Amino acid sequence: MTSLQLGAKEEMVEKFLDAAARGDLTLVSTLLSHVPSLINQKGDSGWTGLMLAARNGHFGVVEALLSQGCDKFLVNSSSQTAYDISKFWGHRNISNLLSRTDEGCQRVLPGSDLHQQENYFSREMLDRLSGKRADKVWMEAKRSDPGTVYLLFSNLNPMISSSKEDEDNRVESRLCRFRFEAVKDLLQKPQTLVIFLGVEKRKTPFSSSSSSSSPLQTEEVTQEPPAWFAISTDEDAAELLKRCREKHSCFPKLPHRDLLKLSEEEAGVVAQARSVLAWHSRYSFCPTCGSSTKMEEGGYKRRCLNSDCRSLKGVHNTCYPRVDPVVIMLVIHPDGNQCLLGRKKIFPTGLFSCLAGFVEPGESMEEAVRREVEEESGVKVGPVSYVSCQPWPMPSSLMIGCLAVAISTDIKVDENEIEDASWFTRQQVTETLLKGPRPALTIPPRQTIAHQLIRHWIGMNSNL
Amino acid sequence: MTSLQLGAKEEMVEKFLDAAARGDLTLVSTLLSHVPSLINQKGDSGWTGLMLAARNGHFGVVEALLSQGCDKFLVNSSSQTAYDISKFWGHRNISNLLSRTDEGCQRVLPGSDLHQQENYFSREMLDRLSGKRADKVWMEAKRSDPGTVYLLFSNLNPMISSSKEDEDNRVESRLCRFRFEAVKDLLQKPQTLVIFLGVEKRKTPFSSSSSSSSPLQTEEVTQEPPAWFAISTDEDAAELLKRCREKHSCFPKLPHRDLLKLSEEEAGVVAQARSVLAWHSRYSFCPTCGSSTKMEEGGYKRRCLNSDCRSLKGVHNTCYPRVDPVVIMLVIHPDGNQCLLGRKKIFPTGLFSCLAGFVEPGESMEEAVRREVEEESGVKVGPVSYVSCQPWPMPSSLMIGCLAVAISTDIKVDENEIEDASWFTRQQVTETLLKGPRPALTIPPRQTIAHQLIRHWIGMNSNL
Ligand SMILES: [Zn+2]
Ligand SMILES: [Zn+2]
Repeated sequence: MTSLQLGAKEEMVEKFLDAAARGDLTLVSTLLSHVPSLINQKGDSGWTGLMLAARNGHFGVVEALLSQGCDKFLVNSSSQTAYDISKFWGHRNISNLLSRTDEGCQRVLPGSDLHQQENYFSREMLDRLSGKRADKVWMEAKRSDPGTVYLLFSNLNPMISSSKEDEDNRVESRLCRFRFEAVKDLLQKPQTLVIFLGVEKRKTPFSSSSSSSSPLQTEEVTQEPPAWFAISTDEDAAELLKRCREKHSCFPKLPHRDLLKLSEEEAGVVAQARSVLAWHSRYSFCPTCGSSTKMEEGGYKRRCLNSDCRSLKGVHNTCYPRVDPVVIMLVIHPDGNQCLLGRKKIFPTGLFSCLAGFVEPGESMEEAVRREVEEESGVKVGPVSYVSCQPWPMPSSLMIGCLAVAISTDIKVDENEIEDASWFTRQQVTETLLKGPRPALTIPPRQTIAHQLIRHWIGMNSNL
Repeated sequence: MTSLQLGAKEEMVEKFLDAAARGDLTLVSTLLSHVPSLINQKGDSGWTGLMLAARNGHFGVVEALLSQGCDKFLVNSSSQTAYDISKFWGHRNISNLLSRTDEGCQRVLPGSDLHQQENYFSREMLDRLSGKRADKVWMEAKRSDPGTVYLLFSNLNPMISSSKEDEDNRVESRLCRFRFEAVKDLLQKPQTLVIFLGVEKRKTPFSSSSSSSSPLQTEEVTQEPPAWFAISTDEDAAELLKRCREKHSCFPKLPHRDLLKLSEEEAGVVAQARSVLAWHSRYSFCPTCGSSTKMEEGGYKRRCLNSDCRSLKGVHNTCYPRVDPVVIMLVIHPDGNQCLLGRKKIFPTGLFSCLAGFVEPGESMEEAVRREVEEESGVKVGPVSYVSCQPWPMPSSLMIGCLAVAISTDIKVDENEIEDASWFTRQQVTETLLKGPRPALTIPPRQTIAHQLIRHWIGMNSNL
């Protein structure tokens, strides 16, 4: 760049800042339409056009600058924002405008993804109310409340009802919901586990279409938001079915893949309930001393019954449910146009997915990504970028989804871990996404974070 | 914007694309210096200036566009990148230039943080070689190899040697390193636990200053990279000290905070070793049936000794080390200029830190952030953005560090969880960061992810 050109740039910045300070909206707009980058330029003492307009009370200019994406959180060399300045000088209409929070998050956290991918199993329709778990009086009252919702689990699977096909011929499953009267005999059996799930969030009331599936919808509902519990029972299937109203369409046992056919709300509840129940089913004994333990705090704690046990002194993770962090990553070729997918022997023909593995003790997420990819495929990974995560209740993983950039491309598969791994082009992946399974490539269903990572990458920089 | 102005913009794009297609480097540069946003503008059929220059073999223009940050991964309406085009037309010098990977990561993953914060306890100086853990022959050979490094842990704390003060009067600790001969009696005792940590990575050889602290540096070192093991022993302190060369400066027991005085390399090794050892110390019995278990696979598995146990059928997390995901978050006020910090009763006076809590079963990281912040402080949180993570071996947490934007500001502290929480201004936080602890605010030391999150926020959009 020549010094002449530099001078021209400086001159334009000066002209822009001057126009903002004088409140010349027409000139501000014209200059911005030619050189959009002027909008956050700083002049003397780090003052931007927005600060100058805020200083001098030019509401229209402030409004125009904000609407064009001006960064209202920049600070001048005295660490003041435009908001601080407008407040100091008493331009209340401007400080009100600048303090609005509804559209401000992107500027508080530049680069943050405000419309974060919501993965299946992630929605929380219940407020977990962890503070109530140890409140035995409250809990007892909720258990016998006629408005309370009970879910029944048999062998870690929920009872589901009335599968139906929607317009795309997809089968949808719904959780069977029970009231206190229908399960109170079960609650009295000593081998029954009862887990407190939370109360319905007030802001997101349960949709009418879903709640109409409640088997006891006609009963009186209390004013407080309904509490939800999960019951694990070993009652046999035939007996369980007798508790359902719509017996012909209920299934006390279902294959794992049916857990992927629930609504987003119900999937979130099942993720929580199934993970906690799975923990109880495998952690009945104290790992520290081998004694029996008993459930406490609504299902979120187990206490060793041996009064000499070390686990009773201090706080130890042996007493709390386990969550296993897993990294799952889409590795992108250094050319930007291919991604690395692998398959296990047990996968159906043609199915490839993202590589994944458990985070080890003393390891960061990013290092776990690098180690797992190199172990499984021989490919070395450089930068790693977190995208989104997904609770995966088989039995209790937290899938941490990342994109990663390869810094080597030769593949050497570890056959103990996977059967095959290969680079797939953006075009191959796009075709499968748009047209469904292809002979050369099928990817996991949309409910999996692997699918969402692949879709995220395709959407990131293509012009489809 | 008037149609006249729109026309002017279109005209400029056309001029720019034409210059790139003709290889007019001077005009391309001049136009860019005035309107930098031209660089990724698309014309007919989605062709950018880079594609046109690549099509027609104008190496200089391609080079100039790349050096100014042009996005080389944009595709035209036929899904071709500039690389695809240059390759098709046989301009090999340009396709070579476009396929270079060294500076390409930022464009493969736009918005990714290539210089990811490396937190204390995160560095991996060892290759964990998980594939070798079950290889008993290899493991046995490594254990008696004279080049192998042993660390000694007593009550989960490593023996450290020769603390010294650096120029800032900071005390540095170093791990005592032992060779096979010095510990072989310990290895034969049945109560001794031996954990395989990995082998030194070839690319990052151990620095000479550090390895000079090795008590047996004069012994012959094998050609393969040295393996590292951690030994947990209940031998008493006086006996352990006899094994050290520099007895006056060795400490078999140390307070937790001394774990924060290691080098980055050694901190990473300790994070791994301490987490695994802590697991063995609390999980000696099978949680599924209460029987005794025995260690396998170099310390990364425990197997139930009851041959009827369900844990022996299939793969279950009961057999593998536990890692607890924890969210830790800096909550930012909607005005962008304050952050929410809290303190526990046990904190020293004036110390405030980020809020934090365990991720629950069936919960995403982002939901865990929202739940914990609202439970502890009453503040509601909107967008959540992952920043970096840190293994924290007390005993085995994975701290997942996030920034979060508040959507309400009233604080109501849950006194069961924290003693106080408050909004601190950017200026207060900056002063503490620059000048050290202030009476009004002290923050945790740099080795903690809480400190790094605070520093990250201050660095994000201030002009310090
Ligand atoms: Zn116990
Ligand atoms: Zn067992």
